[in-house]
This record gives sequence, structure tokens and C-alpha cells, in this order.
Amino acid sequence: MDKTFRMTRAGTQAGPSRPVMLAIAGDSAAGKSTLAKGLVTALGAGRCTLVCADDYHRFDREERKTLPFTALHPDCNHVPIMEQHLQLLATGQPILKPVYDHGTGLLARPELVQPRDVVIIEGLLPLHTSPSRACFDVKVYLAPPEEIRRTWKIARDTRKRGYTPAQVASELDRREAESAEFIRPQRSHADVVVRFGPIAVRNDPPDTPLSAELLLRPTIRHPDLASVLVPGMRKAIHLKLERDEDGRPVDTLHVHGYMSAEEGHVLRKMIWTTLGQGGEVPEGLGGIGRRARSEPLAITQLLLLHHLLDLAA
Amino acid sequence: MDKTFRMTRAGTQAGPSRPVMLAIAGDSAAGKSTLAKGLVTALGAGRCTLVCADDYHRFDREERKTLPFTALHPDCNHVPIMEQHLQLLATGQPILKPVYDHGTGLLARPELVQPRDVVIIEGLLPLHTSPSRACFDVKVYLAPPEEIRRTWKIARDTRKRGYTPAQVASELDRREAESAEFIRPQRSHADVVVRFGPIAVRNDPPDTPLSAELLLRPTIRHPDLASVLVPGMRKAIHLKLERDEDGRPVDTLHVHGYMSAEEGHVLRKMIWTTLGQGGEVPEGLGGIGRRARSEPLAITQLLLLHHLLDLAA
Repeated sequence: MDKTFRMTRAGTQAGPSRPVMLAIAGDSAAGKSTLAKGLVTALGAGRCTLVCADDYHRFDREERKTLPFTALHPDCNHVPIMEQHLQLLATGQPILKPVYDHGTGLLARPELVQPRDVVIIEGLLPLHTSPSRACFDVKVYLAPPEEIRRTWKIARDTRKRGYTPAQVASELDRREAESAEFIRPQRSHADVVVRFGPIAVRNDPPDTPLSAELLLRPTIRHPDLASVLVPGMRKAIHLKLERDEDGRPVDTLHVHGYMSAEEGHVLRKMIWTTLGQGGEVPEGLGGIGRRARSEPLAITQLLLLHHLLDLAA
Repeated sequence: MDKTFRMTRAGTQAGPSRPVMLAIAGDSAAGKSTLAKGLVTALGAGRCTLVCADDYHRFDREERKTLPFTALHPDCNHVPIMEQHLQLLATGQPILKPVYDHGTGLLARPELVQPRDVVIIEGLLPLHTSPSRACFDVKVYLAPPEEIRRTWKIARDTRKRGYTPAQVASELDRREAESAEFIRPQRSHADVVVRFGPIAVRNDPPDTPLSAELLLRPTIRHPDLASVLVPGMRKAIHLKLERDEDGRPVDTLHVHGYMSAEEGHVLRKMIWTTLGQGGEVPEGLGGIGRRARSEPLAITQLLLLHHLLDLAA
């Protein structure tokens, strides 16, 4: 008897159900896990599996010191294994996921991951190769202005990963060429590009909450926000037909950081209703760390949540 | 576009070549790695990938102490992941294999394994489930008499794994029920069952080299040894048509441990020529540890080698 046939026949008869797959790609400290965390909270941990693609690092921190490239380089990551694991998760199968410990910089014992209804993969390279990209239903790329990302990275890596500010700054410089070559090109494969930052044309004081610009590419079907995008709401949110850097037509949704808490509350409620999602607006959106909060982040999460719930339905 | 279609299309266009898959199953210290080692030496490490299924242990030694079952229990192992990895290897794909360190009893960082021409999986449970079994071209089960296996296990675990003889003996008792429930039933799924031991009807002194009985089930096509199984060779090797424990017809190849080194040499040469394999008889067969050697082990490896080379051709 042919072995392939035997293997197929011996497999599970009733196929596992297929999860909705969301990619959140972006450079180090671009805000990937903050974006992901709100989605997990809103969905509930029981419906959602979160995988950090940094776990596919091939070398530990000590080994990386001797290498001619940084952690951003595909050769520094188990890219074919990541592709394989994404395919397994996308078809509803469990994986034994490697584990990279950011605290110690060591590769630890792997852990069993079962895909739940929604699988979120956040990391440096989830959109780098075509087999990876093919596994996702929704692809997001985070593209904050570089000076903001630098600030975020220095703050996080000194607080949580035991580096000095000078070490982080030098690491950022060392990574720049690989960031340009491998990380940023992923932007062009995203269905949604998110840019948190100050509004370019305004000269808001430095403590003004950041706004969000969401590039919505016509590669997936975005929700119809016509009833939200009305003149009365224009100060908080508006949509603009534009051309992307490469000339492709896109919609850009501008969500303003200076809207009031009250406006934010009303806006979230309106959007949630418009999206056809019943019940209360999910809790836990927009949180940054333990205390801070961003309304544009909450709106971004709400829109992504809509895609996920819609596809999972 | 349908995601599954995209995933398929995005995959490698030219399929990877498929390795020959050999399972060597058996209880702890049944001689699995000794049997495997000679095959790897004879094939050459460049043509052969060896995987120890103990690496799929789910818990480390410390954690196992608190569990109501032993390492033999399927629930103590990542069986679905082992199945998945076997399927990947059988279709020529790499895996990120977990690693269990027998020295420390810890689960360590996983390692990348690329399947070469021949993949040998040796372990406690490779023939336990139907999806696993379907991945193999040749299935071997090692079934030495229990008193011999006990001696081997005590010798190895005290020498290499830091246990006292009393600890090993007590562990053997603790494992007996699970051995009967999960390990020994794999015997009935093997194409070849190997039993190293003294010959039952003779009362050879204790230092007589062990003989081998090879149960050859008609589930795979065994080589025609007619030209070797001649009256002049009967003292060294002979074949008997028998019924297995369950009544199924089998051939049993008896290879006698008391044959002389000269007889062994001639026999190996004859078998190798009979098998239609050109060139010299491969080196390194029959070795046990660093110094000892067994002629029946060498013959066993030679026959398995034939299957592997034949299928890999």
C-alpha cells in the first residue's frame, strides 16, 4: 500500500476547524504586543492564541554576538519552520513552539500551542515570505515614525531587557540596514498599515496624545463606516482617498489623538454598532502597559476585532 | 482567493524528496540505540538522520515525579506532535525537534533536523498510534527476554544516567503495567521483531554470546536468503516457518551467537552478495558500546540495511 495514502488515511478523519489568522508585523518596539494584547483581552484568552514570532530566533543572545547579522535577519530565524508552524496553525493543528526568553536571552524548552478560534502572530518577520503571508486572513504592519519607535525601544529595552540606553541606541544603528532590507518591505504586503504618531501638519505640544493613521488597502473587505464618517465626527475621525508611496490607491483613516474621552466613548459605541456587532463594546481596548491608554489605539483594535469576529463567525 | 489554495500555491514548487523511514521501537534498554548506531555507521552520517523519540517527553524528570504515570505513558509524551513530525520527515520536510537531555533530565532548546535519505526513529512509542505507523517503510520491534533487559537497563542507567541499581529496579517495577499496556503491544505492528537472548533449548554457559531470533512478518517483502540457508550453514543460521503468539504465520530467522568469528565473516559476505548489494560488506556492524561485538547483531543490521538501501535506491 502506498505510504502517502496510508499516512493520509491514518490521519484524523474529522478535520480540525480552521482558525482566523492575524499577522501583526513590524520592527522591534513598533507596538506589536501592545496592539495584540488589547485584541486578546477583548476576545478573551479562551478564544484566542497569541504567538510571538521572536520565538523562532535561531540563536541565543550570546551566539548572536559572534554573527555577522542581527536578530532582524531571516538567517537569524527559523523561517522555514515558522512557515511550517503557520501552515499547521492555519489548518487547525497544534504545534510545539520554540521559546525565546527575552529576559535571559536564552532559547528554552518548547511549548505546546493549540490554535483557538483566532490566532494572532506578532513579530519581526511574519510577512517576509510568500508561504507565511498565505497563511493569514488579515495582515497588519505597524509603522510608527522612526524617532518615536527609537524612544519606545529605548524605554522598553532598558526597563525590561536589562540594556543601557547607549546599548539600545547602538543596537538600533547596527540594525538599520537589515530593518530597511527585511522588515520595512513587509509594509507593502499588509492589508492594514498602522501609523501612530503626531499629526504632521499640526504643531501640537509634545504631550499631545498620538493620533493613528490607518492605511486600509483594498486587499481585504473593510467595513463600511459611512454612518460614522459624518461632518459632526470629522474632528475625531475622517477617511481620505490617497495614493500610497508606490502609487497604489488606498483609503487612509485618520483617528485623532486629541479627541476627548467622551468623544472617544461615543465613537467606539457608534463604530461597534455600525460594524453590526451586538452587545457592549468590548472592554480592555486601548490600554498601554498598566496605566496609559490611547483612544486611537482602541479604535484601531476595534476595527481589527471586527475583521476577526466577522471571519470567525 | 481561498486561503488553502494560496497556502498550497505559496509552498515549495518542486517537492522535497522522500526519505526511507525506519522505526525501532521497544522498551527502555531493549537495545534500540545500539541497533540504530550500527546502521548509521554503515550508511554514513551524511545519508542518515537519527531521531530519538524520547525527545518527545512532555515533562522533565522533576515534573514526572509528581505524575501518576511514568515516561512510558502516551500522556507523558507529545504523541500528536511526534505524529506530525514523523509525517513532516516522511514527506521530506525539516522539523524543529524537541530535545530531552537524559543526563540532566531536562527539556532543552529544540534543534533543527533535516531528513536525509534514511530517517531512523528509535524510541518507546513510535509504533503506538496508527498515524505514526503509517509513516514508516520498515517497522522493527526489539523484544529481548525481560531478565536480560533488566540487566541491560540497570547497567546503563547506573553508568550513564546517574541512578543507583535499587532506583532502576524500583523504576522497572513501577513501569511494568504501562510497559504491558503501551510498549509491548507495538510488537504486533512490527515487520521485524528482534529477540536477542540465549537459545531456549540449550543450556549454554552464561558467557555464551547471545543469539538472535528475527521474526520476519510477511507485511514487507523480505530478501530471499535461499543461497545462504543451506545445510552447511545450519549451525550459524537457519529459517523456520512458525506461528506467532497470535497464530499468524511468520518466518523466524535464527542467528546463533556461538558461531565462530570466521563463520560470521563468511556469512556476512554471503548475505551481502545474496542481497545484491555490491562492494564490500559495510564496516561497523555488530558493535556494542566501545569494545564489545555481536555477530547476530551484525547480521540483523545487515538485513535491515538491505531494506533501507533497497528502498532508498
